[in-house]
Amino acid sequence: MENNLLEFDLEISRKNIVGFIRKYAKDLNRQGAVVGLSGGIDSSLVLKLCVEALGHKNVIAVMLPERDSGLKNINDAKKFAKELGVRIIYKKITGILSFIGVYSLYPPTFFFKKSFIEKYVRQKRKNLSLKLKKDLFLANLEGGSDEELSKASAFYRIKHRLRSTILFYYSELNNYLLVGCANKSEWLTGFFVKYGDSIADIMPIISLYKTQVFSLSEYLGLPDYIIEKAPSPDLIPGLVDEELLGISYKKLDLILSCFEKGYPTDRIIQISGATDEEIKKVSLYMKKSDYLREWPIRL
Amino acid sequence: MENNLLEFDLEISRKNIVGFIRKYAKDLNRQGAVVGLSGGIDSSLVLKLCVEALGHKNVIAVMLPERDSGLKNINDAKKFAKELGVRIIYKKITGILSFIGVYSLYPPTFFFKKSFIEKYVRQKRKNLSLKLKKDLFLANLEGGSDEELSKASAFYRIKHRLRSTILFYYSELNNYLLVGCANKSEWLTGFFVKYGDSIADIMPIISLYKTQVFSLSEYLGLPDYIIEKAPSPDLIPGLVDEELLGISYKKLDLILSCFEKGYPTDRIIQISGATDEEIKKVSLYMKKSDYLREWPIRL
Repeated sequence: MENNLLEFDLEISRKNIVGFIRKYAKDLNRQGAVVGLSGGIDSSLVLKLCVEALGHKNVIAVMLPERDSGLKNINDAKKFAKELGVRIIYKKITGILSFIGVYSLYPPTFFFKKSFIEKYVRQKRKNLSLKLKKDLFLANLEGGSDEELSKASAFYRIKHRLRSTILFYYSELNNYLLVGCANKSEWLTGFFVKYGDSIADIMPIISLYKTQVFSLSEYLGLPDYIIEKAPSPDLIPGLVDEELLGISYKKLDLILSCFEKGYPTDRIIQISGATDEEIKKVSLYMKKSDYLREWPIRL
Repeated sequence: MENNLLEFDLEISRKNIVGFIRKYAKDLNRQGAVVGLSGGIDSSLVLKLCVEALGHKNVIAVMLPERDSGLKNINDAKKFAKELGVRIIYKKITGILSFIGVYSLYPPTFFFKKSFIEKYVRQKRKNLSLKLKKDLFLANLEGGSDEELSKASAFYRIKHRLRSTILFYYSELNNYLLVGCANKSEWLTGFFVKYGDSIADIMPIISLYKTQVFSLSEYLGLPDYIIEKAPSPDLIPGLVDEELLGISYKKLDLILSCFEKGYPTDRIIQISGATDEEIKKVSLYMKKSDYLREWPIRL
């Protein structure tokens, strides 16, 4: 297996990213950086690199949890921000989402056991997928007139968009850079919310695949409580990235980097260990998500 | 004066826009359109064209006023939406902005006479401009470390971004197109909020200059209460577009269309009646707003 497609020089990468953050803070005349901290690996890595670039006194970690945010993630984020010594802004956005009517779409989950909810969500997703006769992530990218699909899209997307709105507010108020946390795996497959987590002033880790985000995080000594959990968008209880994408990050990243090299399918199969079907699926994700990387359609 | 630079075939323009809206509703598999209605001329024109394209039963006018929204605009929007027979969603976002802390930046204005507030805002702007030694709109585009400037930017920008967040929510919930209202004059000069009023699914009037928006609105019979008021972003009491831009739309649009033709300065002066200084200012607005029309900076 040609795993080295994803290998990279960790120290050079770290220096490049730190230099990039410093350069744009200076060029755009900003006094520091704001990072939206979820407790996940991407935003933790970005926070760490911002601190390295600008110093902990010039970085604000903004936490914007809501009803469905995992408690472990909230606690992990708090703990990590405290360890780094950055200023923390903590604002629960449940009230805002509730006012808009978002929670009236799906019932609260805190009455139930976690295992029950996860089973319930999984079953609902399975039913919808069967009804639509397609992979749900693909259905999500393609859109369509199914009421349940529209409801689900509206439900999770506003959470990211609202967060970006508030993050920009704090960044502008302090004249700080808003530093985004998108990575290459999600950017290429459309695994993000348009004008949600895909907007910021700068995107320092967007040239790293998710598996590379893990490597760099380990290299920089990020704590286990950040690294050792399954990546999740943390928008709907119980759903993790790899289940939503229908493929492991290891395979996904290898397929994506093979595409980049222009390798033929048989070589991709050999390198990634993925099936022909998985490769086609990833290719379809890329194609169907093109519009997410574009501005509004103009007349 | 070569005013005909801004003349265009109104009937062809109407048909093109209606066809454009219909095409993308169909292509993107959406059942209707959502328009954020402010009571101003741009969103009213877009609403009217959406109704023509998709029928009044398939269009939702979403009104999201806040503490500082002009009462006349709110009433005009309601009246116009009712006249067109579209579904209205009315949600005051004052509570959300207040929760985030936005209003703590500037005091409420309802205790004071309108004329007093306008004088106060004008004076504050003048002082800031003198302090920064530059045109305030330009200062706004360029950013910088002045605390008052940061505060003002944070204060007004979140209003548009929050609106877009909520507009996307309603459009996704109903599987409707989010139809944006940006015009060419504001798009080219940077007179908009990045990821605020500049995002939507489609932008049907972005190829029309503001003066052309007026012509088409008159042609389509938009009511006087929409047409006959000074365009304003309606974000800070008493501030109208032409004062913020420091130039009349008539001159601005002629200058912009001369730029498009590549005319030399003396010819632009002759055609637009603008001064050399005004032309330089517009050119600077265009240049300094480039970053507003770009995605986040990527490493």
